[in-house]
Amino acid sequence: MVVQMDHPTGRRIEQPAQIADTINRSLQHTYTFEQMPLRHGSQLDPVMLAYETWGKLNAEGTNAILITHALTGSSHAHDVEQPDNPKAAWWNPLIGPGRAFDTSRYFVICSNVLGSCYGSTGPASGNPRTSRPYGMRFPVITIQDMVRAQHNLLEHLGVHQLALVAGGSIGGQQALEWAVAYPEMVQKVAVIAATAALTAQGIAFNEVGRQAIMADANWQCGDYAPGREPDSGLAIARMLAMITYQSEESMEMRFARRPARCNEISSPTHYPDLGGRFDVEGYLYHQGETLARRFDANSYLYLSRAMDLYDVSEDYPSLEAALRRIRSKALFVGIRSDFLFPAAHVRWLAEKVSSVGGNAEYIELDSPHGHDAFLKEWQQMTTALQYITD
Amino acid sequence: MVVQMDHPTGRRIEQPAQIADTINRSLQHTYTFEQMPLRHGSQLDPVMLAYETWGKLNAEGTNAILITHALTGSSHAHDVEQPDNPKAAWWNPLIGPGRAFDTSRYFVICSNVLGSCYGSTGPASGNPRTSRPYGMRFPVITIQDMVRAQHNLLEHLGVHQLALVAGGSIGGQQALEWAVAYPEMVQKVAVIAATAALTAQGIAFNEVGRQAIMADANWQCGDYAPGREPDSGLAIARMLAMITYQSEESMEMRFARRPARCNEISSPTHYPDLGGRFDVEGYLYHQGETLARRFDANSYLYLSRAMDLYDVSEDYPSLEAALRRIRSKALFVGIRSDFLFPAAHVRWLAEKVSSVGGNAEYIELDSPHGHDAFLKEWQQMTTALQYITD
Repeated sequence: MVVQMDHPTGRRIEQPAQIADTINRSLQHTYTFEQMPLRHGSQLDPVMLAYETWGKLNAEGTNAILITHALTGSSHAHDVEQPDNPKAAWWNPLIGPGRAFDTSRYFVICSNVLGSCYGSTGPASGNPRTSRPYGMRFPVITIQDMVRAQHNLLEHLGVHQLALVAGGSIGGQQALEWAVAYPEMVQKVAVIAATAALTAQGIAFNEVGRQAIMADANWQCGDYAPGREPDSGLAIARMLAMITYQSEESMEMRFARRPARCNEISSPTHYPDLGGRFDVEGYLYHQGETLARRFDANSYLYLSRAMDLYDVSEDYPSLEAALRRIRSKALFVGIRSDFLFPAAHVRWLAEKVSSVGGNAEYIELDSPHGHDAFLKEWQQMTTALQYITD
Repeated sequence: MVVQMDHPTGRRIEQPAQIADTINRSLQHTYTFEQMPLRHGSQLDPVMLAYETWGKLNAEGTNAILITHALTGSSHAHDVEQPDNPKAAWWNPLIGPGRAFDTSRYFVICSNVLGSCYGSTGPASGNPRTSRPYGMRFPVITIQDMVRAQHNLLEHLGVHQLALVAGGSIGGQQALEWAVAYPEMVQKVAVIAATAALTAQGIAFNEVGRQAIMADANWQCGDYAPGREPDSGLAIARMLAMITYQSEESMEMRFARRPARCNEISSPTHYPDLGGRFDVEGYLYHQGETLARRFDANSYLYLSRAMDLYDVSEDYPSLEAALRRIRSKALFVGIRSDFLFPAAHVRWLAEKVSSVGGNAEYIELDSPHGHDAFLKEWQQMTTALQYITD
């Protein structure tokens, strides 16, 4: 597995995953701090966070927006050199002067999460005690740990108030955790396609993906050799995840039962098709192969597990007690066709926040695109975010 | 992988998969015919079908009911020695004197499908040309081939008219195919939790399962050695399938986010849990392990592919032309919470049959149990079937 880095020139640089955290990218900064105790009992030292910023922090340190990314995302939420290319960065159309996250008024920050392979400390990072990658010796990390690490980064940057924290999927879990863990610091929060805790079905899908990675003979209990990464397993996990990020409706619109348009991409196992290939299969092979090329398999295990483990209530006497802590004006965005974080659960959470005295609004994206709609429905997202950014 | 056979005494006999088709079971009969051309171009010779029957065929050969089973099912739809144990046979509560499929009036037949490993010719059977198992040299088979093989069996048994064909899931696909392919022979048909063709999402889920099997180092392109079967891969495929057979709602009812009650069952990859085990994970490990013990991995590949490939319209100028052939009184049963064969699609198919002049009724099971409800909701199933059996 190699990491493809978005270089400011637009050129893509391939780097082995294990040195992802040492890459010098002209737009990505890093901050390293000495040590951090973790929710599940262990600790990490040192911890490096990679991050990018857009716009300027004011003298009072009060105009910052924190953007939190999803499972396989990176700090590259916006691309200043290609601001109008939606594919150049994952929330590109929402960030920039005059956009939902207005860089002419706000200091916008996005940091790569703890445990990822895009510059922050994760399983592919060198373990300072052995100078080899952590692999599965990396401690279990949680959404709470990611948020605590981000808090350290913001202190370092001189941010005293967050005008807004916004994210979707596990980014939405982080946004929610910010509002609960640091209520005095977060003025507004946008929790998108995320709920108080993942469903049993969501945990089950994630676990099937993890088992597929660990079943790959190349995985070697996490100590895979350079050039012999568990690409098949990671590709299979990604294929499954891509189904859960879409919907029956959108897959029917995009693929239905059409035969594959091209058979050039191999399946993860390279075995010939059994009775012809469907278009949806070719698409999934492509998605699997692409992720296997750009992401670290162990990171995938840890980050998907953090998604499972998160329950906003777990450090408090009850869910109500957790939600009562929120002081932020809160926007909850559900997606009609999302079956990973069902809209009904997002709405329920918004109503729960209101019922304990919070200032919460629920908006639903009317999209067939499933969970991934928060990375696709730019117009609806912009409209929804006006509630919290105006 | 070993096949667990339901012995009439209730004792379970474990047999290696490759000799599954030679097992002499006192209640299971076999019928062998010389050869059969297949829809995808190849042919099989000879073909053996294993089957069981209950009740008596009348002299005219007109009181037969054909029961068609689902993906990993067998001919053992009913157990005469344990008629009141729902777990002794897969449709046990629906079959017997005075039950929905009334063995005091009808001659009820269930045959193991072509391609399975429970007595009928499949990938684990000996290839007569090599005397080794077919493995992946087994030809691609389809729902249409399964039905044609069943038709041969019925001729052999002296059945001239089918009073009813009934099945769920790929059994429902077979029932539908029966009504379209042999309209003069089928008086009534019950198509349960099945549609005109699987969705792109359904194909996608199946393909992830197949890739997991083929990624298992033990799979060896289908030529796995005895005692070294691709159990991990098959277990992972089953874990995923079990999610698609249930629903978000039922998994929330059964498991929610509860921790596992016991950690004795190992995951398919035997790797320790990452941050605790959820109850739903322990359940899926158990389901995966159980299937890997009882089913042949190559059979799983071929049968799940037959499910994907089936489209009732494909041998006809249009869907309407296919459905216009149906002469049977037809019952279509959807399940409210089914997301593998969505209820809306089952209803749509029933309406389509009516719109081309057919006699079709749609009944929906109001169940949270997802696709598998046709194997669980005995009271609702009995009530629904009254429409077609009274």
